[in-house]
Amino acid sequence: MKNIIKIAIIGLGQIGNYLYNELKIKKKDIELKTGKKIRIVGISARSKNKKRKFKIDKNIFFSDPFKIINKIKPDILFEVIGQSDGISKRIVELALKNKINVITPNKALIAKHGNNLAKLAEKNKVSLEFEASVAGGIPILKTIKEGLATNKISKVYGILNGTTNYILSEMENSNQNFSDVLKKAQKLGYAEPVNPKLDLNGFDAFAKVRILSALAFNSKISKYKCLMEGIEKIELKDIKIANQLDLRIKLLGICELKNNRLFETVHPCLVSKKSYIGNVNGVMNAVITVGKPVGESILQGEGAGPGPTSSALLSDLISITKGEVKNPFGVPVSKLKSLKHYNVNNYINSLYLRFEVKDVPGVLSQITNRLAKFKISVKRIIQTPDKKNDKATIVIITHKTSELNCNNCLSVFKSNKYILKNPTLIRLLN
Amino acid sequence: MKNIIKIAIIGLGQIGNYLYNELKIKKKDIELKTGKKIRIVGISARSKNKKRKFKIDKNIFFSDPFKIINKIKPDILFEVIGQSDGISKRIVELALKNKINVITPNKALIAKHGNNLAKLAEKNKVSLEFEASVAGGIPILKTIKEGLATNKISKVYGILNGTTNYILSEMENSNQNFSDVLKKAQKLGYAEPVNPKLDLNGFDAFAKVRILSALAFNSKISKYKCLMEGIEKIELKDIKIANQLDLRIKLLGICELKNNRLFETVHPCLVSKKSYIGNVNGVMNAVITVGKPVGESILQGEGAGPGPTSSALLSDLISITKGEVKNPFGVPVSKLKSLKHYNVNNYINSLYLRFEVKDVPGVLSQITNRLAKFKISVKRIIQTPDKKNDKATIVIITHKTSELNCNNCLSVFKSNKYILKNPTLIRLLN
Repeated sequence: MKNIIKIAIIGLGQIGNYLYNELKIKKKDIELKTGKKIRIVGISARSKNKKRKFKIDKNIFFSDPFKIINKIKPDILFEVIGQSDGISKRIVELALKNKINVITPNKALIAKHGNNLAKLAEKNKVSLEFEASVAGGIPILKTIKEGLATNKISKVYGILNGTTNYILSEMENSNQNFSDVLKKAQKLGYAEPVNPKLDLNGFDAFAKVRILSALAFNSKISKYKCLMEGIEKIELKDIKIANQLDLRIKLLGICELKNNRLFETVHPCLVSKKSYIGNVNGVMNAVITVGKPVGESILQGEGAGPGPTSSALLSDLISITKGEVKNPFGVPVSKLKSLKHYNVNNYINSLYLRFEVKDVPGVLSQITNRLAKFKISVKRIIQTPDKKNDKATIVIITHKTSELNCNNCLSVFKSNKYILKNPTLIRLLN
Repeated sequence: MKNIIKIAIIGLGQIGNYLYNELKIKKKDIELKTGKKIRIVGISARSKNKKRKFKIDKNIFFSDPFKIINKIKPDILFEVIGQSDGISKRIVELALKNKINVITPNKALIAKHGNNLAKLAEKNKVSLEFEASVAGGIPILKTIKEGLATNKISKVYGILNGTTNYILSEMENSNQNFSDVLKKAQKLGYAEPVNPKLDLNGFDAFAKVRILSALAFNSKISKYKCLMEGIEKIELKDIKIANQLDLRIKLLGICELKNNRLFETVHPCLVSKKSYIGNVNGVMNAVITVGKPVGESILQGEGAGPGPTSSALLSDLISITKGEVKNPFGVPVSKLKSLKHYNVNNYINSLYLRFEVKDVPGVLSQITNRLAKFKISVKRIIQTPDKKNDKATIVIITHKTSELNCNNCLSVFKSNKYILKNPTLIRLLN
C-alpha cells in the first residue's frame, strides 16, 4: 500500500460522526501501528448541515456519495449507512469493483449479501471487513477467523443484542412492564426511537447469528430461518416467576452443528441465575464459542454504541492499512460449504409454559391430561390464584420434549374457553 | 512465502507432542485457510525413544536441535522447551538470525528477553509470535494488538494462572487444605509434579502480566517487580472466612497506568462472590481489558493444557503462513515507550487481616489501638475463640490504606508474644 491512505466515510449518523472524530484523533496511533499516514478525503451523508456532535469538514463533503468513488478513488471506504439493500449495497459494490477496500458495521447487508460481496472483494483483490457487525467492540469475528482458526467449532451462542438485554434486565431491576422500559431504553439511546422492531423481534440478532455461523463452520451464509422469536411477548409476570425459580430470561442467538446440519435460532431462553450467561446484564453482549481443542471461550463487552463500534471499525482499518488482504470469510468464498438445515421440529428443550385461565374446577386437569397424552412430563408446577378476577396463572416447567410434539400438544388450547389466551412458552437453556 | 512451508518443532513434551499431532491432522484445514501446504521437516527433544501419547516420525528426529536450523532451514520453528534462558534462548536467537519465523508459548523467555528477540526478528524481517504464552487458548494478545488496536487501554487484569485458580477453587469445594489440594492438582496434571513453585508464588502470572502490559501500553517489557505474592500462605481458614463474608480469594495479575506510571502486580485478592471474576473457577483463565472507547472487555477460556496451547500456536502459524510479518509487540521495538514505575508504597486497598492470638485479655485492644494510631479504620471485625488451645482468630477488614502505612503499622506485631504468627494479609479488589 501507498504511504498515505485515503479514507472516505459514507453516512454521518451517530456512528459515522464518532468514527470521523476517532480517525482524526487517532492519526498518530494508526501511523505508529501501521507505518502509514491516513487522510480523510471524502465524507457523505443525507444532510450536510445537520447538527452533529463532532464538527465535520464541509470542504470534503459530497452530496453524492458515488462521486467520492469515481472522483477521488479512496483506498478505504467506510459504509455506515446501515441498509440491507439500496444505497448501502450499491455503494459497497461500486467500491469493491473499483478496487477500494470496504469496512462496514452493517450486519443486515452482510447477512443478506455477504457471500456475493465477498466474492466481489476476492475477485478485485481487496478487503471487505465487518468486525463491527457482530457484538460491537468485541473482536469475535477476528477471534473465530484467526485466533481460533484451526479449531473445530461445534457451537457459538450468546447475547447478541444489547437493546433486548437492557430491556429484560431493566424490567427485572425496576419492576416495570415491557412498554415502560422500552420507552426508557429509547430515551437513553439503547433502542431505536422510531422503529425498534428489528431489535425486539430478534431480526437483528438473527443477522449476527448468520454471520457467526458462516465464519464458525466455514459455510455460506444461510437463507433459511430456523427459529426466530423476539421478546415482545415477555411480560413482567414471566420475569418475576423466573426470578422465583432462580432463573433469568435472556434473548439468545445460537448456531450449532447438529448431525452435520446447521441449526440457527434466536429466542428467549431461561437460564440459571448462577450461570455465567445469566449474569451478563444491561447492554452487554457475550459470545461463547465451543471448539476443539480450545474448549469453551467467552468474549464479553459492550455490544453497541458509537465507541465500541468505532473500536472495531478502526481495528479493521489497521489490518487493511498494514496491507493484509484477507478472505472476508476466512477462506475463499468458492470453498465455503453449503450446509443443510436442521429440522426445527426436532429441537428438544425443557419448556416453561404459562397459562392464564378462568378459575373454575377442572382446568388444571385439562392441561395436565393434555400434556400427559403427548407424554410431556411435568417437572414443576406453580398455580397462583387471582381471586378478584376469578382467574389464575398456571406455570408448568416440563421435562424435555420436541418442538413438534409441543406444538401439537398446545394447539388445542387456542380454542379452550377457560384458557384466556395463548400460553406463553419460553425454552430453558439445555 | 513459498507454497510448501517447512516446520520444525523443538521440544516434544506434553505440548510439543500434542502440537505435532495437531499439525498432522489439521493439514488440510491449514491449506484451506492459507492456501499453503505445511510439512514437518524436523523435530528434536531430549529423548528420542521416550513413550509419547502421539507417535513421532523418528526419521526426522534430530538429537541436536541446532542442526535442524543449519541443515534444513525450516520456514517456521516452534520452540516448546520452555526455559527462560539456556537452549530455548539460543535456539530462538539462531532461528531469527537465520530468517526463520519463530512461534513459542514460552512466557518466561518472552518476559525476560522479549524486547531483544523482537528487535532481532524485526531486523531479519521475520515473525516472532507468542500468543500461547498468555492465557492459553484465549487470543488475548491478538485482541490487544489488533482487535482493540486503537483503544487507549488503561488497565488489564485477571486470572492468569490455572494452577492456582484450581487450587483455590478446590480448597473451597472440597474443604481440604492447601497441601492436600496441591497433591491432587499434581495428580491431575494441573500443577508441575516436581517443582510447582513458579505457579504458586506468582512468578508465572507475573511473566504474563509483563507481556500484557508491554502490549497494552506500547511499552518495553519492564524489569522492575512492583509486587509479587503467591498463594502459599492462603489457608483453608481464610477461604472459609471469605466465604462467610460473601467473598472469594483469587490470584489476580494486574497491570495499570497510574498517573502515567506503570503498575504491575500479582497477589491474592478478595473479590465479591457475586462479581464476574469471583465466578471464574477451576483451571479457567479470564482477562479483563479496560479501554477507551471500547469500554470493558472480557475474555475467558481454558488457560493451560496441550489443547488450548496448541490452538494458540496454530493461530500464530496461520498468520505467519499467510505471509503476514508483524511487529512482535504491535509496534516497532524502537518505538516502544520506557515507562517509569509506580511506587508500590502508594498502592491503596481495603485489607483483610487475620491475627492468630493467645486468648488473653487486652490483645484485641492492642491490635485496634495500633490500627487507630496509623489511622487505619476498621470496617468489620470477627473474633473466633479456640478455647481448647487458649487461642483466638481475629479477622479485621479495614477501610482503605496504603501499603506503606499498613507495613509500618503491622511491623510491630512481629515481636508481640501474644500474637502467635505474622498476620495474614489479603487485599480486597478495588
